[in-house]
Amino acid sequence: MEEITIHYLERPSLDKPILIEGLPGVGNVGKLAAEHLIDQIDAVKFAEIYSKHFPPQVLVHDDGTIKLVDNEFYYCKRESDLNDLIILVGDYQGLTPDGQYAISQFIIRVAKEFDVQYIYTLGGYGLGRMIEKPKVLGAATDLELVEEMKSIGVTFSRGEPGSGIVGASGLLLGLGKLEGIRCICLMGETSGYFVDPKAAQAVLEVLAKRLNVEIDFTELEDRAKQIDILTSKLRESESMPEPKKEDLGYIG
Amino acid sequence: MEEITIHYLERPSLDKPILIEGLPGVGNVGKLAAEHLIDQIDAVKFAEIYSKHFPPQVLVHDDGTIKLVDNEFYYCKRESDLNDLIILVGDYQGLTPDGQYAISQFIIRVAKEFDVQYIYTLGGYGLGRMIEKPKVLGAATDLELVEEMKSIGVTFSRGEPGSGIVGASGLLLGLGKLEGIRCICLMGETSGYFVDPKAAQAVLEVLAKRLNVEIDFTELEDRAKQIDILTSKLRESESMPEPKKEDLGYIG
Amino acid sequence: MEEITIHYLERPSLDKPILIEGLPGVGNVGKLAAEHLIDQIDAVKFAEIYSKHFPPQVLVHDDGTIKLVDNEFYYCKRESDLNDLIILVGDYQGLTPDGQYAISQFIIRVAKEFDVQYIYTLGGYGLGRMIEKPKVLGAATDLELVEEMKSIGVTFSRGEPGSGIVGASGLLLGLGKLEGIRCICLMGETSGYFVDPKAAQAVLEVLAKRLNVEIDFTELEDRAKQIDILTSKLRESESMPEPKKEDLGYIG
Amino acid sequence: MEEITIHYLERPSLDKPILIEGLPGVGNVGKLAAEHLIDQIDAVKFAEIYSKHFPPQVLVHDDGTIKLVDNEFYYCKRESDLNDLIILVGDYQGLTPDGQYAISQFIIRVAKEFDVQYIYTLGGYGLGRMIEKPKVLGAATDLELVEEMKSIGVTFSRGEPGSGIVGASGLLLGLGKLEGIRCICLMGETSGYFVDPKAAQAVLEVLAKRLNVEIDFTELEDRAKQIDILTSKLRESESMPEPKKEDLGYIG
Repeated sequence: MEEITIHYLERPSLDKPILIEGLPGVGNVGKLAAEHLIDQIDAVKFAEIYSKHFPPQVLVHDDGTIKLVDNEFYYCKRESDLNDLIILVGDYQGLTPDGQYAISQFIIRVAKEFDVQYIYTLGGYGLGRMIEKPKVLGAATDLELVEEMKSIGVTFSRGEPGSGIVGASGLLLGLGKLEGIRCICLMGETSGYFVDPKAAQAVLEVLAKRLNVEIDFTELEDRAKQIDILTSKLRESESMPEPKKEDLGYIG
Repeated sequence: MEEITIHYLERPSLDKPILIEGLPGVGNVGKLAAEHLIDQIDAVKFAEIYSKHFPPQVLVHDDGTIKLVDNEFYYCKRESDLNDLIILVGDYQGLTPDGQYAISQFIIRVAKEFDVQYIYTLGGYGLGRMIEKPKVLGAATDLELVEEMKSIGVTFSRGEPGSGIVGASGLLLGLGKLEGIRCICLMGETSGYFVDPKAAQAVLEVLAKRLNVEIDFTELEDRAKQIDILTSKLRESESMPEPKKEDLGYIG
Repeated sequence: MEEITIHYLERPSLDKPILIEGLPGVGNVGKLAAEHLIDQIDAVKFAEIYSKHFPPQVLVHDDGTIKLVDNEFYYCKRESDLNDLIILVGDYQGLTPDGQYAISQFIIRVAKEFDVQYIYTLGGYGLGRMIEKPKVLGAATDLELVEEMKSIGVTFSRGEPGSGIVGASGLLLGLGKLEGIRCICLMGETSGYFVDPKAAQAVLEVLAKRLNVEIDFTELEDRAKQIDILTSKLRESESMPEPKKEDLGYIG
Repeated sequence: MEEITIHYLERPSLDKPILIEGLPGVGNVGKLAAEHLIDQIDAVKFAEIYSKHFPPQVLVHDDGTIKLVDNEFYYCKRESDLNDLIILVGDYQGLTPDGQYAISQFIIRVAKEFDVQYIYTLGGYGLGRMIEKPKVLGAATDLELVEEMKSIGVTFSRGEPGSGIVGASGLLLGLGKLEGIRCICLMGETSGYFVDPKAAQAVLEVLAKRLNVEIDFTELEDRAKQIDILTSKLRESESMPEPKKEDLGYIG
């Protein structure tokens, strides 16, 4: 096995596609958002990436069959006046720093083969406290994109995220920029304590507006309610402090 | 030294062989089962695998001579209407995730050279509690194999193992599937606290039935009794709680 | 992406240049000193190094745009009787031992391409206690350099640093020596608890004398005062013990 | 820099040389023994090994000059009826398992270039308790060598060392055996708590007898006395229990 291999199930012909990445991370925000997008637009899987930088692990389906852990590309062709879409989801990110670099660089190469015009990376921004109405923070490879994102409600907050953006959501921007691809990272605010469908919805609402996609959020809303019930129970039983008004004021 | 090297003691000519893997892991179930199988069918060692992904270590035999830690292939030729067997055992699995991938891929290449028809990987499924009558859980590369395994008593339990199968027992299935080899993983339920000959026997009973092998289990049974004596002593001295009836009910 | 890549913004023609390294480390002494030097002599960035040995991370500028973490080369041309200068600064050092070797070796190759005559590496020497007047410790690739450094006030203290010099500041000397480049390491004494502008100034004063550079230290002095205020507040609130006279005597 | 590089200071012509390895390890027994041997026979350094598998570190000599951490080969030519000697010492072993393999394999290659007849690896066998009269345990690549070692007082104790031999002292035997070189490991019993000149002397006495080398042990004996004074002081102040008679009986 090579360091990274790609298996094409199909080689779709795509028109000026936009790549959207949503791999596991803080609050699984990016992964939730990208998977919901795939469901909503009936995107079709066309390639699988395997790598020695993923865990040495297979997952077992409910029917007893297995799959090797991977990252997967989906596509969605759209009306001719809209860019086609490629969506990247997966079970894991690379386990090590150099594995992260290798896989992100590989993804950039695939993006260039398909003549990808823009990359959107989706993630969570962990606040370490419960949050009622998550904002969407942004970062981009050029100032024009920053302004465009601001105009659709994305927050650019000086000094945030202070530690930069770690992992695929950051690296695809950094490596994409070196290759001349314009890239945007959208980060939904999240406590980071739980899988966070609410933050995923916030991110996806921004993306849907930008990309002209119709999305029904009922399922994400239902999952968010379940998480809310779970966390309020936990708060009662463990007497986790109710988030303060002031905190919520800052957030809202 | 290459990343991985193989030393052939002999290059047997094998007829449609089946590969059985039993490397160290949870409860050493796979290793115990595979080594007992080797003993019972008088399998013959024909190759040794060395790798920088194993610990930098030699073992010292009772006579004072040493051996570099390795994985080893054994074979057993059988009557013409039965598949020949290759058995893989060893001192260690690869130490790192990418080492695991490299070694499993290497094993798959060897398997293909010998035109291996099926791979059976043997392992333990750690429950974190004592268990009286271990079941054998399964996973496979296709649905037909799942059904065949069910018909000889293997349990396929939705959502188990929840975290997938980690290490060589999983990876050989994942990588084997990519290469078109049909594979089955058999996991004996075990506490995971001790070397577990009882779980090894459970796994081997299923395998023997499937492969038409005669196996005498006296030795494994004797070792299981010794472990039982040991654990019951530990339970007395450390007042480890007696497993509850309900738990046993669930297991049985 | 290769293991390490360099992007040239410009390929300056430099006359017998001297390379000065100041990467992050103990008290960030080297990084502070080298960055202050760049500011003071208006050095110009001419190359960026990217590597899979750095963290998989982008930094976000105040304007919302990103940069992939890197190491950067600056140059400063000087009057013909003075050596030109190359200054190396960066966000990170290599994360792993072999990453450290790979990056330092890469830097040595770049140095040789530019016919670098001397390398000065700047760092901190952590004492684990507060220090009033930091000395500058030295190490060099040959005895003649040791004597020259002594003559401008650098301390060479038998058995210090006892554990040698770890990281880029050490490795560039070690690898540089193998390639026949004369190298000097200057280490400013520091507590190691805080970013230490005072130690950076001490190092830079020695370097300025040696290289005939005019440097205004107002900014470093201001930052040192801020740190002093901060640490004295901390000392009050946490009743951190006042450094003893005897300790200061030993240092001064 | 390659993964491993060797710098030859000289290429001695050696007659059927024997390689003796003494790198840092438990109680630094092997390193002490090999360095004392070098002193006693006035062996001459002829090569240095550098590797990215060592720490990224330089050591600082008392005169202020530096050296990159390395492993070093020394040689000693002897009368024509005796094998010449090569001695390997160094600052560190490889930091990672695969680094250990790479360096040991490299050493084996050098050994073969010099037509090395035997390899002796020297090390400590940590007992975790103070020891009065250290025995020397052995392991070898063939039974004949085991018998020869027994005849000169080396102990071969069934099941010891139970965990095998880890690091260069083990790996050189394992890899050497694969290359057809006869190898012996000599392990001096040591507490493992301190640098142990007494264990080094025990190992060196066996080796000297075997190789027909005259060795004056005064210096090692002096260092052993210093350690004894140190440990008896520690025992008093920390009321470390006096080793029991029974323990000493077992050892002696």
